Amino acid sequence: MATAPSVSYSMTVRLEVPASGTAVSQLTTAVESSGGSVTGLDVTASGHEKLRIDVTIAATSTAHADEIVEKLRGIEGVSLGKVSDRTFLMHLGGKIEMSSKHPIRNRDDLSMVYTPGVARVCQAIAENPEDARRLTIKRNSVAVVTDGSAVLGLGNIGPKAALPVMEGKAALFKRFAGIDAWPLCLDTQDSDEIVAVVKAIAPGFAGINLEDISAPRCFEIEARLREALDIPVFHDDQHGTAIVVLAALTNALRVVNKKIGDVRVVMSGAGAAGTAILKLLIAAGLRHAVVADIHGVVHAGREDLAGGNGNSDMTALRWIADNTNPEGVTGTLKEAVRGADVFIGVSAPNVLSGDDVAAMADDAIVFALANPDPEVDPAIARQTAAVVATGRSDFPNQINNVLVFPGVFRGLLDAQSRTVNDDMMLAAARALADVVHDDELNANYIIPSVFNDKVAGAVAGAVRVAAKAVTGTTAV
Amino acid sequence: MATAPSVSYSMTVRLEVPASGTAVSQLTTAVESSGGSVTGLDVTASGHEKLRIDVTIAATSTAHADEIVEKLRGIEGVSLGKVSDRTFLMHLGGKIEMSSKHPIRNRDDLSMVYTPGVARVCQAIAENPEDARRLTIKRNSVAVVTDGSAVLGLGNIGPKAALPVMEGKAALFKRFAGIDAWPLCLDTQDSDEIVAVVKAIAPGFAGINLEDISAPRCFEIEARLREALDIPVFHDDQHGTAIVVLAALTNALRVVNKKIGDVRVVMSGAGAAGTAILKLLIAAGLRHAVVADIHGVVHAGREDLAGGNGNSDMTALRWIADNTNPEGVTGTLKEAVRGADVFIGVSAPNVLSGDDVAAMADDAIVFALANPDPEVDPAIARQTAAVVATGRSDFPNQINNVLVFPGVFRGLLDAQSRTVNDDMMLAAARALADVVHDDELNANYIIPSVFNDKVAGAVAGAVRVAAKAVTGTTAV
Repeated sequence: MATAPSVSYSMTVRLEVPASGTAVSQLTTAVESSGGSVTGLDVTASGHEKLRIDVTIAATSTAHADEIVEKLRGIEGVSLGKVSDRTFLMHLGGKIEMSSKHPIRNRDDLSMVYTPGVARVCQAIAENPEDARRLTIKRNSVAVVTDGSAVLGLGNIGPKAALPVMEGKAALFKRFAGIDAWPLCLDTQDSDEIVAVVKAIAPGFAGINLEDISAPRCFEIEARLREALDIPVFHDDQHGTAIVVLAALTNALRVVNKKIGDVRVVMSGAGAAGTAILKLLIAAGLRHAVVADIHGVVHAGREDLAGGNGNSDMTALRWIADNTNPEGVTGTLKEAVRGADVFIGVSAPNVLSGDDVAAMADDAIVFALANPDPEVDPAIARQTAAVVATGRSDFPNQINNVLVFPGVFRGLLDAQSRTVNDDMMLAAARALADVVHDDELNANYIIPSVFNDKVAGAVAGAVRVAAKAVTGTTAV
Repeated sequence: MATAPSVSYSMTVRLEVPASGTAVSQLTTAVESSGGSVTGLDVTASGHEKLRIDVTIAATSTAHADEIVEKLRGIEGVSLGKVSDRTFLMHLGGKIEMSSKHPIRNRDDLSMVYTPGVARVCQAIAENPEDARRLTIKRNSVAVVTDGSAVLGLGNIGPKAALPVMEGKAALFKRFAGIDAWPLCLDTQDSDEIVAVVKAIAPGFAGINLEDISAPRCFEIEARLREALDIPVFHDDQHGTAIVVLAALTNALRVVNKKIGDVRVVMSGAGAAGTAILKLLIAAGLRHAVVADIHGVVHAGREDLAGGNGNSDMTALRWIADNTNPEGVTGTLKEAVRGADVFIGVSAPNVLSGDDVAAMADDAIVFALANPDPEVDPAIARQTAAVVATGRSDFPNQINNVLVFPGVFRGLLDAQSRTVNDDMMLAAARALADVVHDDELNANYIIPSVFNDKVAGAVAGAVRVAAKAVTGTTAV
């Protein structure tokens, strides 16, 4: 599939060009003939002989950006200055900061914000620890915790390299839900240590967002933390994805007029996201599911359930075998998808062809969520499928966790919830689906845009109600 | 000593009073005759019959505030509404927040701050981890870490109750040095666990500020973290205090025209602060020191150096015995202080009398730093001592760590220092002392105000230069 020039590969090039002649129009032509697009052109200095121009250009990749720069360098009379990458410029010094809510102008301010006044507040909390939710940042704070083991599609790049993602996540928490999140990128990938660290830092937070921790460790870490802590623990890669997929599927089924209890779903991918999606869809009423991983369809007879194939994720795979594919179908993904109503891919690029999609049931639904390259070209899938969704922003129906995690945590925090459970996640999915009204719903609009300003509030409200219905610390 | 009404015990009382008559003047009289002071009086509603007035009152303590409220309740015709505590109001929901540096207005912003653009930044750091200092918040971030075991004068109140202090500290870091600090209040008081947690969270920070961790654990925790980490670890209760005491002593000695190598210093208190002060003064040239704790003067023959007296802090006490009191003086603090040039108290209220101070050498220097009640009444000490300093803001010469930690960390961060050592701390003390010029220096002005806007920059500059002189990871 063709990729459009994107601002995420955007650069600003400083050039000196002759004041007369066609150099300026040659610049634009050169960029456009290379497949880039000029998104800004500022003359920053002008003289009789020369112009200094800052040209901002969107490319499709880093290599493409380099290629465009070389093309510019080749234009006669043009001399190339600094090339600035806009994305990198935005990251200089980091994307978030800590701010004080109160000015500290004088001795009086100091004596209330800090000593001696603060001592009375500390004493009040020491006497009644629940007051920490009233008198400290705990009420509105979420720790965004990663070990850098499974960052985006980049894999195990470690805690420092994961930090830009976690900062971005924190920025989104604030932007969409007014939550104060701080990144904690851990210098350990040992599950016991991660559990111990998160338990230790929990007193100052009202929720834990686990992020980009590889499977199967993420299952155990999350389960142990949920057991140990009195604040909700949410692994966004699992549950955020599951909620947005359920919401999108709910609306896709409305479009094709099928019911979740009747459809046959085939999923590609048995990792963290796949397992969580499956569990939530089953909680929502799904009855007929088949999952395939790189070794083919998961069925009760597969050797690697007992540790074959070098598989280290036996527990999750065993759960899938026990809860899907009651007919004991074997074979490949391509075989399984034949006649299926729904395909959900959370795996790898290009595992299906247009023919595979064409062989699905009538009014097929295809969610090809691998990023940046989906399981099947969405344009080709759309030729025969009724509804197609991807993880990409340049196609309709983007399945994006940003629709979910801010509102979910807003609801949990507002309810002072001590946990997060299936009811809350089902409520979140329902609320997100319902943001799309009947008169808006169609095959190209099953899920709202991330900038739809109703989303976070709707999700938060639903989660808050569901969380308030829980008494005590009922774990998932 | 008399305590003045303070804004840190400030409340706003809503009252309804008759519009005519003397009720309003009776209010002010009642407050003042009770020893409080009226700092604000706002008529918030007015009618023919009644006035609604919000009176803001400073008291000396919580009990005193209650007493004043009762007095107001007793005035005829006055009805009492809501009583709001200004310090508590300021703490509602916490004192700090996370902010995004860039607006996220549209898809383009999102694609640079978060996916897909962020992936390129992550890859750059994965290839060159040092780039984390350039492209993430690491550069300007400090973790404020406590276990809540020794908070202010309140003792072991635990992590949640410690949070207001740590938030205040974070706010001061920003106010005085532009640093982004985030509090981590740990749910463990096990030294091994604290060390493991701080090591684990270190990748996202450029410095660790340990805070309010009780002795002797704080010594071991700090030493192990300094050994393990490639970012500076600074226990403010020890080193911040030591630096500000050395700066103040430097200037006090200028006032009385004595030299640090010649004076005899007697210290009361052998805890975390006392030990750190002693070490830094010795590094600065002090040769004659005697330390007393609750059991009297520390000398090489004392039983508890080997574990007697229930003392758990053998290592620190042994260090003191080995590095002070070469004459092997024994006896009480009061005996030791006779003829001494300098008294430094970091211990408990009222351990010395005016007579004890009068028995010191001519031109004696007294630093009575116990808070809120000093080791000796500063007004009485000043009758015979040449220079007196306290930890209180209502006497001249306040010894306050706020003068030190923001600038020290600013310098360390600017130098991208991997450590903090004695040279840097001595440089910080010298720079702080030098903020007071010769023509400003006198017995009542040996140390600048915390709001002196030259302080943080001067300290930061000196620390930065000293830190840049260190190559590699030389530990303290």
